[in-house]
This record gives sequence, structure tokens and C-alpha cells, in this order.
Amino acid sequence: MQSDDLREYRPVRGGRPGDRYVKVVEPYAAEFRRRAPGHLIASERVLEPESGLGRLADVLRKLVIGRRIATDNEAQERLGPVKGLAIFASDNISSSAYATEEIMRVVVVAGAGALAATTLPLTFAIVAVLLIVVTSYQQTIRAYPSGGGSYVVASDNLGRFPGLMAAGALLTDYVLTVAVSVAAGVAALTSIFPVLYEPRVWVGVGFIALLWVGNLRGLQESANIFAVPTYIYFVAIFSLLAYGTWLVVTGGLPPYSAPPEWADAVPLEGLGLLLVLRAFAAGSVALTGTEAVSNGVQAFRPPEARNAGLVLILMGGLFASIFIGISFLASQLGVIPDPSEQETVISQIARTLFGAHTPFHYLIQLSTAFLLVLAANTAFAGFPRLASILGKDRFLPRQFQYRGDRLAYSFGIMVLAVVAAGLLIGFEGSVTNLIPLYTVGVFIAFTLSQSGMVVHWWRLRDEVRGWRWRAGLNGLGALATGVVAIIVGVAKFALGAWIILLLIPLLIGLMWSIGRHYRSVEAALAVDPASSALPRRVAPRVLVPISRIDRATLSALAFATSISADVTAIHVSNDAEDLAQIRQEWERWGGPVSLVILESPYRALMGPLMAYIDATDREDPAQPTTIVLPEFVPSHFWEYPLHNQTALRLKLRLFFRRNTVVVDVPYHLG
Amino acid sequence: MQSDDLREYRPVRGGRPGDRYVKVVEPYAAEFRRRAPGHLIASERVLEPESGLGRLADVLRKLVIGRRIATDNEAQERLGPVKGLAIFASDNISSSAYATEEIMRVVVVAGAGALAATTLPLTFAIVAVLLIVVTSYQQTIRAYPSGGGSYVVASDNLGRFPGLMAAGALLTDYVLTVAVSVAAGVAALTSIFPVLYEPRVWVGVGFIALLWVGNLRGLQESANIFAVPTYIYFVAIFSLLAYGTWLVVTGGLPPYSAPPEWADAVPLEGLGLLLVLRAFAAGSVALTGTEAVSNGVQAFRPPEARNAGLVLILMGGLFASIFIGISFLASQLGVIPDPSEQETVISQIARTLFGAHTPFHYLIQLSTAFLLVLAANTAFAGFPRLASILGKDRFLPRQFQYRGDRLAYSFGIMVLAVVAAGLLIGFEGSVTNLIPLYTVGVFIAFTLSQSGMVVHWWRLRDEVRGWRWRAGLNGLGALATGVVAIIVGVAKFALGAWIILLLIPLLIGLMWSIGRHYRSVEAALAVDPASSALPRRVAPRVLVPISRIDRATLSALAFATSISADVTAIHVSNDAEDLAQIRQEWERWGGPVSLVILESPYRALMGPLMAYIDATDREDPAQPTTIVLPEFVPSHFWEYPLHNQTALRLKLRLFFRRNTVVVDVPYHLG
Repeated sequence: MQSDDLREYRPVRGGRPGDRYVKVVEPYAAEFRRRAPGHLIASERVLEPESGLGRLADVLRKLVIGRRIATDNEAQERLGPVKGLAIFASDNISSSAYATEEIMRVVVVAGAGALAATTLPLTFAIVAVLLIVVTSYQQTIRAYPSGGGSYVVASDNLGRFPGLMAAGALLTDYVLTVAVSVAAGVAALTSIFPVLYEPRVWVGVGFIALLWVGNLRGLQESANIFAVPTYIYFVAIFSLLAYGTWLVVTGGLPPYSAPPEWADAVPLEGLGLLLVLRAFAAGSVALTGTEAVSNGVQAFRPPEARNAGLVLILMGGLFASIFIGISFLASQLGVIPDPSEQETVISQIARTLFGAHTPFHYLIQLSTAFLLVLAANTAFAGFPRLASILGKDRFLPRQFQYRGDRLAYSFGIMVLAVVAAGLLIGFEGSVTNLIPLYTVGVFIAFTLSQSGMVVHWWRLRDEVRGWRWRAGLNGLGALATGVVAIIVGVAKFALGAWIILLLIPLLIGLMWSIGRHYRSVEAALAVDPASSALPRRVAPRVLVPISRIDRATLSALAFATSISADVTAIHVSNDAEDLAQIRQEWERWGGPVSLVILESPYRALMGPLMAYIDATDREDPAQPTTIVLPEFVPSHFWEYPLHNQTALRLKLRLFFRRNTVVVDVPYHLG
Repeated sequence: MQSDDLREYRPVRGGRPGDRYVKVVEPYAAEFRRRAPGHLIASERVLEPESGLGRLADVLRKLVIGRRIATDNEAQERLGPVKGLAIFASDNISSSAYATEEIMRVVVVAGAGALAATTLPLTFAIVAVLLIVVTSYQQTIRAYPSGGGSYVVASDNLGRFPGLMAAGALLTDYVLTVAVSVAAGVAALTSIFPVLYEPRVWVGVGFIALLWVGNLRGLQESANIFAVPTYIYFVAIFSLLAYGTWLVVTGGLPPYSAPPEWADAVPLEGLGLLLVLRAFAAGSVALTGTEAVSNGVQAFRPPEARNAGLVLILMGGLFASIFIGISFLASQLGVIPDPSEQETVISQIARTLFGAHTPFHYLIQLSTAFLLVLAANTAFAGFPRLASILGKDRFLPRQFQYRGDRLAYSFGIMVLAVVAAGLLIGFEGSVTNLIPLYTVGVFIAFTLSQSGMVVHWWRLRDEVRGWRWRAGLNGLGALATGVVAIIVGVAKFALGAWIILLLIPLLIGLMWSIGRHYRSVEAALAVDPASSALPRRVAPRVLVPISRIDRATLSALAFATSISADVTAIHVSNDAEDLAQIRQEWERWGGPVSLVILESPYRALMGPLMAYIDATDREDPAQPTTIVLPEFVPSHFWEYPLHNQTALRLKLRLFFRRNTVVVDVPYHLG
């Protein structure tokens, strides 16, 4: 047949019985616009629920997530540098709230003297690495204006395996970013509200839920929500640093009181090279989040690359200033990290300078807390984007490509939130327990991405002027990050980094297998449309298993006879009474379908039925047997377990049988 | 059509392509025997699995459960009085192992003197009630030779509601029987093997699993397994009683040493009426299990009623002797129940008479332990039988009627095992915690059943000679058990019986609702076969949602065109690139099906598709729309989550849509 299935009719609601074919010129009325023959465009109307409950759910959903955005309006979701900084730099800048502390926590075992001697030099070393990375990434952004995450750059230049390695490392790290940032944010809150210390895990899970919903609202909206706290943090922290520096210069620093648990006794170990390297590794956490900008270039307004590059430079500058400032003040005051993890170093500085529980102390703590939670937001921007690229390349399930009502990658956002919350619960919300898992992955990704860039310039050596210094710059980046990756991996190995070094290969293996599976299935299913005529089939052989004659059975038999002339009803039983009854009912009915009774002496239903289908199939293997199942649909879902258990078993069994088509004919009551 | 679908053909395995219709005289070869036109009898062959793994599972299954038994051979599963006693009386007789102890545990708070004064008189009182019940039930068995459980008798004579009340009370009590007996059996074992005390809950769960499997093997087989321990118990316990009585008569009773935790100080309370009633209530546990015989008359060989009556009398006699004997010896020795529940009263008697850890002490303990576990077996005979009757009457889901390979009610057995194990775990395997829940239900059932019998005789007053004394006898039974029910309910109310008194009405409500639901559905579906012509239907309107042209799609389209001439393929997308590609592929293909493209600006798949189906439906509401879904079946089940997520969502959504038929066309690789 070649009917024009686009008959122009207007569906009428509540039309009279005679009105069945109301053809009008206007096609499909409110639900669809017609673009071309055979091409309709759905309006937003098709998404509106019809039931009262559905409409209520829709209103709630719009309140929480917002109105739907059409794909064509994607541009309105893009970011300028100001909001871009809030979204993409918050992870990195928030590290300034705990990087100093992480260094000090390692060094403190060598005593207060060691703290004073090493904190600031290590800070400068880490800032130096950051500067190399930021400069190096400027080139990546310009070379990959459509988004140059480590996965893309490494796949493109080094091959599929290094690409997947970068992807695995980054996916793990994004999840850890959420868990660590939220844990650190909650720790900052418990410094001022000790009552939150007990339920800290659930406070953290609550924040993750907020981030989940906020991100479902889309990029623009989440930037609106989350930009304000970032800028409040800048104001608060720079005021603190300025006032502190002023006191240092004028020599008016107030005296510092160490935490009560701190016993300034004999140092536990000496200040050896290994300890310094471990402290450096701990502080390198500061570099996480740099990746997100280059991964998300396409989230910026045009000129995308320029805006992204600008955000990256701003980020580096702001981060370096805060990190150095805090390390400086901590060294000057002689701050000791709280062994009980109940008060952060920044809180101690603010408390010493302004007094405990003063408004400014609260301001510092609250803005830090919110910025730390926001840092997780960077991961919410990065993870789903990377997962969707991997989904498109078939290394992850297709669902990661779905974009929700507000163009956010809903599935990826959900997976990230759930896994991170699980991690937070598993590690009982402790920053110190989570940190060792962190940072390894990000430096592996850095190294792969920068090495990839070196290959990139080498390949373009005949086209790009100055390819040597460009390759050299990226090479320096690869070298610096590679060395840090090794230091971090070794220093944190026993503390937990081994989990990550085990997990990344597993992830690579998983993605590799998924990719291979999808590709092999695609190859097996592929056909050349031009040479694939539809096989002409005769009407199928139809079997209808029935237990009695009722409305549901009749409805199934009516459908069966409408699709084929070869219909047989089958009744399986072992009860003599039941057999006599069905036979008698069938005779009274006298319908145009023949009945086969399968007596089953061992009471099994499935066995005889399957054997009969087998026998029927052997008669003509080319023709698929079609099983039509009468299925009663109860009015309420909780009544479902009382019905259709047999149909369910039958469907499950038949689904895996070759050449068998199962047709459910649901019968609705009332 | 009126084709004779019983073409006589012999399915050939590995026949050549030309051989498709090999008609032979012998019908259906090995799989089926032909009884009449349209009536085939399946052989055991149809149940044999074809895959290697399936065959292995089948062998294992036969090893554990045994060979299948055909329904016609049901008679071989029936029991004579000897095995019948082992199955149906073990519950009641095993109560003799703890009934004395239960009385003593209550009275002990009034001091050792109270123990000596009340134990034996209370024992006689309970035995008196038992004798009344046994005599009264003799009549029930004769009046209901097809099985006269309380549910049947109460429904028959008092109405549906009292019937369900009896059923609810009995179902709860059967579950408790399993939990209590197994807990008591394990307690007997821990008396001699204290190492089992720690994992007692799991030892108990292990026993329940054994009972599960044993009962799946069928009645006969479980009697074979479980009869021996019952008779060993008789020999051991009567030897103990004989030797003990001999020592009492000759005055040679050895001195008894009380448990170390027993502080023979001031009694905690005086011996009041309430305490005596509570002790009586505790001891009435002895009457549980009497119901099972009259419920299971049909499990006996003919003459069923005589055999069942004989077993009931034997049971009463044996139980009374043991119960009185133990109470007598315990009083003579001055036994004190062990406060820590680590040693039973019987163990204390045996230990005192024969010495601790002597072979005879072990024999008594082991045989008691096994008999107690066996008592649970009575519930395994009773619960599934009662549940299947309730299933047949539509008060429980149909599954309870299924009989497994060995004619056992597999589903009921499973439910009983799982719920009882849950209870055992929930109550941490403690007999004392479980006992208060017990016994209330059984006495409610007794009372209802005996009252029903009174009505029964009244109704037959013109036909039955001596109906007055018969009704009087049953009336006495009803009175005695009714009084005990009240005593037990009041005495144990606060200890836990309230749970049961709350649970029974809930169960009644649940069964009532299930019954009403089934009946209303049946009424709504019922038709008169003689006046129900099959509506003549034109071939359905078929929609095939597709995402691309591949083998799976083509297979679905081929099926669609085989069942109707009105087929439309539908492609939903919002990606311009994808749209162009499908359009081009479709044109290259040029098959006999028209394509409708639904562009979805908000990326939703379900909404536009449902709206389109709605629109199509409105065109001709009489004709069901049929949706044909291409569904790819992966080679391994773990690959399934990577595919068909969309098909699954679609099916779920469409299943609840009226007048819509969904057809799965599975495509198997390779």
C-alpha cells in the first residue's frame, strides 16, 4: 500500500458518534504543525498530561525545574564570562578553602616548627604547577573550540585507549569532586554550627539533592542560583586577606590559641623528603577543576574560545592570590589544624583576627561553605557533558545523551548525584577519608591531554607557525602534571589511591566492552536499505491460550481473527471437571475458531504449551508463530498481582524464543 | 474458518527443507498422545529441558524433590494410620515436650512450693479439655469425610464471615507452629550442644529449609523421612517415664540440682487465681495440632474417616500419657525451669535420672529435638492444604492451588517457609517470646468449628438419629474451647496475643477483599457463550515506531504488513541530522510502508507518539490501534540494559491505554 497516511483531519474531542471522520483543512489542529507531507512538528501541547493527577505533577515539575526549553533555543542557555566563572571555576577556586589545610595536616606530624617552615614554600610550588597548566590549557581551548576535554584530545591524538583512560580518570574524579566538596562544605558549616556535626552525612546528601534539582533547571538557571555565593566569597575572603596582611605589616596580629586536642609535644616524625612530597600531593588538590573549562567550551557564548580562555586566566589568578594569602596568614599566626576535624584552618584564622562568633567570622564560614558546595556544581556541569560525549561514541549507554526539559543531561546528572551521595554515605562524610582518592585521576587526565596536544602540534607542524614552542609549552605541562601524578599516586597509594588506580582500569574495561557490544550489534543489524526488500509474508499462524470463555478471551480471539485466518485456541488443564466444562462452553459458543485441549497429567502449563508451539513451528519454520494473550487489566495497580501471573511467565519464556511474536490484548474493565 | 487444526503430523527433527509437512498416522509422536479430535495428552517428555544447563538443573531437581507424579496417581500419596500419626500427630504430641515447662515457667514466680502444688493438677485440667476436643472432633471427621477443617465447617454452618475468621486464625497459627516448634527443637539441641546456642536462629532457618524441601517431595515421602524420629521419641520418652516411675515407687529418686541461675529466695508474687489461669493458658499450647487431622482427612487411605479418627484417638492417648508422666516426674523431682532457657525441663529430668551427658540423656534430647522440628511438619501438611481450599474459594490468590511435581502445594509450602523463617529471625529464635502469640488462634478455630457442628446437627435433626447427644457433645467441645480461648486471650493479651487479635481481623479483611475482587472481575468478564458472536473486525491499523532501518526494523515491518494492509512507520526525533538521514534512507529503501516523521522540539519521545496514536484513534475509535515494536534480543541477559529501554517504557505506557494492542517482534541475533 502507498496510502497518504497524512490525511488531513482535525481530531475532535467529544464529537458525536456520527462525526468519526471530520476532515478539515487545518492539519492536526493543536497537537501538530505540518512541515511537509509526512513530517509533523509536535507542539508543547502533546506533552500536557490529561489526568488531574498528571496535571498536578506537571505544575509541580514546572515549579521545581522550570518551563521546557525547545532545542532550537539552546543558545539562550549559554554563559558569558561572569556566570561562566561561577559555574566552571568554582571547583578550582573553592580548593583554596582547604588546600592550605591539606598541606598542614600532613606536615603537622613533624611539629609546629615544620608547619611554619614548609607551608608557604609548598604553596608556591603548587601555584607554579597551576600556572603551567593554565597556560598549557589556553592552547587546548584555542585548538579545540568545540570542547577539548581530556577525553577528546587524548582520543584524537593518542588513540582510543588513552582516550578512555582519560575519560575513566575524569569520571571518577568528577564523582569525587562532588563528594569531597560537599563534605568540605558541610565541615565548614559545622565549624560554626556544631549541632550539624552529628547529622553531617545527611546534610551533605541534602546539598547533593539541591544540586541535582538546580542542575535540572539548566545551565543558565543554575548559574543564576549559584553565581551570587561565589562573588560573596571573593569579597569576604579578600577582605580577610587584606585585613590580615595589614595587621602583619603593622605588627598588630592578635595571639592565636591552638585547638584543645592539640598536644604540642615531641613531633611524631622528622621532616623528611617523603613527608614533604606527601604534603605536596595533598596540596595538589588545588588543581582540580581546571579541566572543566576546556571540557565545556561549548557552554560559553560566542566567541566561545575567547570567553573560556578568559575564565581560565581569571580563575588561575584569583585562586593563586587566595591560596598564597591563606597560607601566608596561617604561617604568620602559627595555625595548627584541628585534629578532630571540627574547625577548619580558615575558620581559625577568621576567629583569631575578628573574634569567634562575630558577624565576619560567620560571613567567612557561610560563604566558604556555600562555595564548597558550589564546587560540586562544576562537576555537575562536567560529568554529564563528558558522559553524553561517551554515550554518543557508544562507550556508555545511550541514556546519557538524553537532554531533559531544560536541555540538561538529566540521566548523567542523576547518575552523578546518586553515586556521589553513595560515596558520601560510605565514607561517613569525612573530607580526610575522601581526599586520598581524589586528585590522582585529574592528574592522569591532565598528563594525557597535554601529551595529546604535543602530538597535535607535531601533526600540524607544516601548517601552524611556531608549532615548536607550542608543543614545548604543552610538553612542559605534560611533564609537570605527569610528575605530580606520580607523586600523588605514590604518596596516597596506601591511603586509598589504590582504589582509584584499580577502578580506572575497570571503568576502561567496562566502557571498552560497551563500545564493542554496541558496534557488533550495529554491524549485525545493519542492512543496505536499497537492497532490502520486505519479505512477503502470508498471514501468521496464531495460537491463543485461554482458560475459559469470557470477555477478555473473546476480545483476544476477535483480534486474532482480525490478523489471520489461521487461529487456534489452546486450553491446558489436568482437571477432568474443567476439561468437560470448557468443551461444553466451546460447543455452546460455536465460534469460528477451533479449540485444542492439551491435557497435562503432570499439571505443568508451560511444558505442554511450548511443546505444542514447537510442533506447530516445525510444520512451517519460515512462518513465525504468533501467540495472542488475553490479558485482563485491573482497575488498580495493586490488584495486578492477583491476575495474569501466567501471562507474565508465558511472555518471559516466549520473549527469548526465536521467531515467536507475542501479542498482548489487554482487556480494560468498565 | 473451521480448519481441523489437529492435522496428524509427526514433527521431524533435522528434516530436510523439502520435508516440511511430514504427515504420518501416528499423531504428535513422543510429545503427545491423542485422546480425541482436539484433545491431546502431554507426555512427561514435554517437560524435559532441551539445553544442557536445563538438563543438569532437571537432574538436580529430581535428586532433591524426586520424580514427577501424575495427577491420576494421587492415591499412592495417601497415608495409612502409622505414617498418618507421624505426619498429623507430631505437632500435638511434640507439645508434650514443652507443655509442662510452659506451665512451670509461669508458676515459678510463686516459688518452688507453688510449682509442686499446681503443675500436676493443671496438667490434668488440660488433658481433660483435650479429651473433650478429641471426642468432639471424632464427630466432625465422620460428618465431613472430605476434610472438615474449621474453615469448611464454620463456612458451611455459620456463614462466610465465621469461616474466614477460622481460616485467618488457623493460617496464623500454622505459621506460628512452624516458628515455635523449630525454635523449641533448636532449644532442645542447645541443651546438649551449647555451641549451637549462638547461631540458633540460623540453625532454625536451616531446619525450615529442610522441611520445605522434604515437603516438596510429597506427603508419602515426607512421612517416610519423618516417621522414624517420631517412633524413636515414643520409645525413648516412655522408657524415661517407666524408669522414673519405677524409681518413684521404689523410693530411689536421685537428688536434683537446680539450675545455677535459680535463686530460691522469696517468691516474687503469691499463687493467685490470675497466675493459675495464666499457667493454664500457657499449658494449653498442648492442644495445638488437633485441627490438622480433621483438616486433612483426604490425605488418608480409604476408609479415610476411620483412619483419621483412629489417628486422632491414638494421638490423644499418647499425648495425655506423656504429658501427665512428665509433669508427674517434674513434680516428684522438684524441677525448676532454667531461667536462662538453656536447658529444658525434660533434659533436667533425664540428666537427673541417668546422669548428664550419658547416652540416654543424648537420646532423649536428640529425639525430642527432632520431634519438635517434625511438629512443624504438621503445619506444612495443614497450611498449604487450607490455603489451597481458600484459593479455590477465591479468598487467596490462585497460585495457592498449584500442585508441584510431587502433588505438593508448592506455593503454599513456600509462603509458609518464608513467613515462618521471617518470624523466627524477628523473634531471635526465642520460644518464650513466640509462645504468647501462639494458641489463641487455634482455640478460636476450635470454638468456631465445634459451634458449626452444633448447627450442623440441628439442621440434620430430622435425618440423624441421636442428633441431640451429638449436638450436645460438640456443644460441650465448643464451650470448653471457647472458655479456654477467652482465658488464653486475656492471660496472654499484654504478652503479645494482641498482635494476633489484631492480625486475624486484618487477614479476614484481606481475604474478604480478595474474594470480592475476584468475584467482581469474574462477573464483569462473564459472558454467555451461546449469545456471544465474535465481532467481525477489519484488519487493524498498525503503527511501527522505528529509529532507523535495520534488520530488527525490517523484521517488525514484515510482520506488520503480514497482519494488515494499513501500516505506518513512525520516527520521532529532534535532531536535524538524524531527520535528514532517516528520510534519505527511507527513500533509498522504497518499501511498501509510508513513513511519518514526528519532530519533537522538546526532545520528548513518548508525548508526540501518544498524541499521534490518540489522533489516529479518534479517526476510528472502534478499531484498536496496534503498535508493532521492533525489539532486539541480545545474546546475553546482562546486555539487556543497554537496549530496548525505550521499548520497555512504551510498552508500560501503552499497556494501560484502552483499546491498544502492543506486539513485540523480537529480533534474535545469529
